[in-house]
Amino acid sequence: MRDDVILLADGGGGERMLDLVRREILARFAPADPSGELARLADAARVEAAGPLAFTTDSYVVRPVEFPGGDIGRLAIAGTVNDLACLGARPVAISLALILEEGLALGLLGRVLDSAASTAREVGVPVVCGDTKVVERGSADKLFINTAGIGEIMRGPDGRPRRLAADAIRPGDRVLVSGTVADHGVAVMSKREGLSFEAAVTSDVAPLWPLAARLLEACPRLRVLKDPTRGGLAAAVNELAEAAGVRMRIDEARLPVRPAVMGACDALGLDVLTVANEGKFVVVVAAAEAEAALAAMRSHPLGRDAADIGEVLPEDAADDRARLGPRVTLRTTIGGERILEMPYGEDLPRIC
Amino acid sequence: MRDDVILLADGGGGERMLDLVRREILARFAPADPSGELARLADAARVEAAGPLAFTTDSYVVRPVEFPGGDIGRLAIAGTVNDLACLGARPVAISLALILEEGLALGLLGRVLDSAASTAREVGVPVVCGDTKVVERGSADKLFINTAGIGEIMRGPDGRPRRLAADAIRPGDRVLVSGTVADHGVAVMSKREGLSFEAAVTSDVAPLWPLAARLLEACPRLRVLKDPTRGGLAAAVNELAEAAGVRMRIDEARLPVRPAVMGACDALGLDVLTVANEGKFVVVVAAAEAEAALAAMRSHPLGRDAADIGEVLPEDAADDRARLGPRVTLRTTIGGERILEMPYGEDLPRIC
Repeated sequence: MRDDVILLADGGGGERMLDLVRREILARFAPADPSGELARLADAARVEAAGPLAFTTDSYVVRPVEFPGGDIGRLAIAGTVNDLACLGARPVAISLALILEEGLALGLLGRVLDSAASTAREVGVPVVCGDTKVVERGSADKLFINTAGIGEIMRGPDGRPRRLAADAIRPGDRVLVSGTVADHGVAVMSKREGLSFEAAVTSDVAPLWPLAARLLEACPRLRVLKDPTRGGLAAAVNELAEAAGVRMRIDEARLPVRPAVMGACDALGLDVLTVANEGKFVVVVAAAEAEAALAAMRSHPLGRDAADIGEVLPEDAADDRARLGPRVTLRTTIGGERILEMPYGEDLPRIC
Repeated sequence: MRDDVILLADGGGGERMLDLVRREILARFAPADPSGELARLADAARVEAAGPLAFTTDSYVVRPVEFPGGDIGRLAIAGTVNDLACLGARPVAISLALILEEGLALGLLGRVLDSAASTAREVGVPVVCGDTKVVERGSADKLFINTAGIGEIMRGPDGRPRRLAADAIRPGDRVLVSGTVADHGVAVMSKREGLSFEAAVTSDVAPLWPLAARLLEACPRLRVLKDPTRGGLAAAVNELAEAAGVRMRIDEARLPVRPAVMGACDALGLDVLTVANEGKFVVVVAAAEAEAALAAMRSHPLGRDAADIGEVLPEDAADDRARLGPRVTLRTTIGGERILEMPYGEDLPRIC
């Protein structure tokens, strides 16, 4: 009978590792890989994809690995699918690399991998290659997952690849968000701190490719999609404004936030604007297409709370703020206007 | 003045992380990325590549992170380039994802990243996307690196993509190795155990794409390339024989092993056949092309010790061993023949 925890020998590259990979990985992921590449367990997988491609990677170190609404397995697949979707790319192939701590319970590993496999099935993307390493007890915290992904960038009606990028942003564009903010970070922090709130707060972690596909279809002048993960909405809009060389104004009153999340942020001393999301897009679109974008998102369950939350400000050469002033401001609910700063980064370690 | 160690805030997704990424990552890797994708710091990178593609990933957890002949940075780039090369694929784009332990010395991080950047330049492959996570002190061991890679599978004279795979192996084929075995594992273990030997033992870690390109050119009937890393030569030939459904015989006397490595293996209680390599190919090729393959490899410094070490045995339907017997045998230097088993996996934790 096999031990019910991970041993160092499980990462040694021999018979024991092959056995682990067959039982824990192939059993879950190979049936969803029609190419059969994963089952070959070769040094690399063959992938049929027509360029231009999107390529992305993320490591996941979230603590705890299981949290309300998701776990590190779902996070690892959704995060990479969402990064590809931000370039207008349909996910084609995903890699899955595990770093396991000696002593990790196989039951936990199994639950996390089940969750990853089911998330990949949701968007029909196969896991085609992977890697398994084991480190000594105390040299990692349970398990870390890295996923990388390849996507095919969708083409427009003219047959040319869609180009979603910050430098396409224009003054007058609208800034949208695909739903409520801060759910993921608050769910993880609540679990970590052992807090419970009147209303359950669950992570929004979800693979958003279906939402991106609808937006691409509905909006020829979709400028950019951005995944507001670490650093939350504040980091996402600041990065976009900086990369585009524009100023933006966000309207706090229009920002969709669940009351329970708002309450939890107050209790935890967090700012909803800087808390990570794992199932949301920030969308910048030409003003004339903002309504179409909202309708496209709201037609899907993952976008039912989509909202128009702000604008890209018109250029004003005479206005010093355009050159020297803050990139992003927030019109507050009480009617004032303040700088919405890029967060520094110390609030929420290991949130994803 | 910035602290000289990694802090948790360096992984928070805010201003501080952007600062780290610009100074430590972009400064080293962006100049070698003509597409400019890395510098965009977008959610994903755009990659121009014509399919079929090779796709691979590996996480690196080697301990210690610096060892004679290399470090975790060179290992992470070379390992992924070599996995792509095993499919006959020219490396096109690499991702680099870091998991850093709070308190990691920036000096060490810098050396490792310098090494990764210079290894990528050796084969002209750009790092186009990445990720940086930080975990609390004690939740990782200094740093772990994941790389994933995309390669373009080379085409033959007929314009069709080359197909290197175990199922192309035929009875009568020759088994070659591109140079001396066991150098990497012995170098790492010597450093870890604080041993020193009369002659220096250094890791063979190197990106092998130039060698693969020469083999592809020289040998139309090149069957398969395999990277004998964890589990060493014994694991590599057993995996190939199993996947191909053939038997192989390796000739111990023909195996290139440095005397210092042999001596170190004796001292450390290791079997040279099961120790990891990070700059070697196992090559299976039609017998008629074995000499051409050896000449192609020996024409490059990375293959100067290439040797013909064994054969794929002829089928013999009447021979029960073909169905029931061991997949791989070793003809020993003293003239006997023994089973060359798939290693179990417990010898060398964290060797790569």
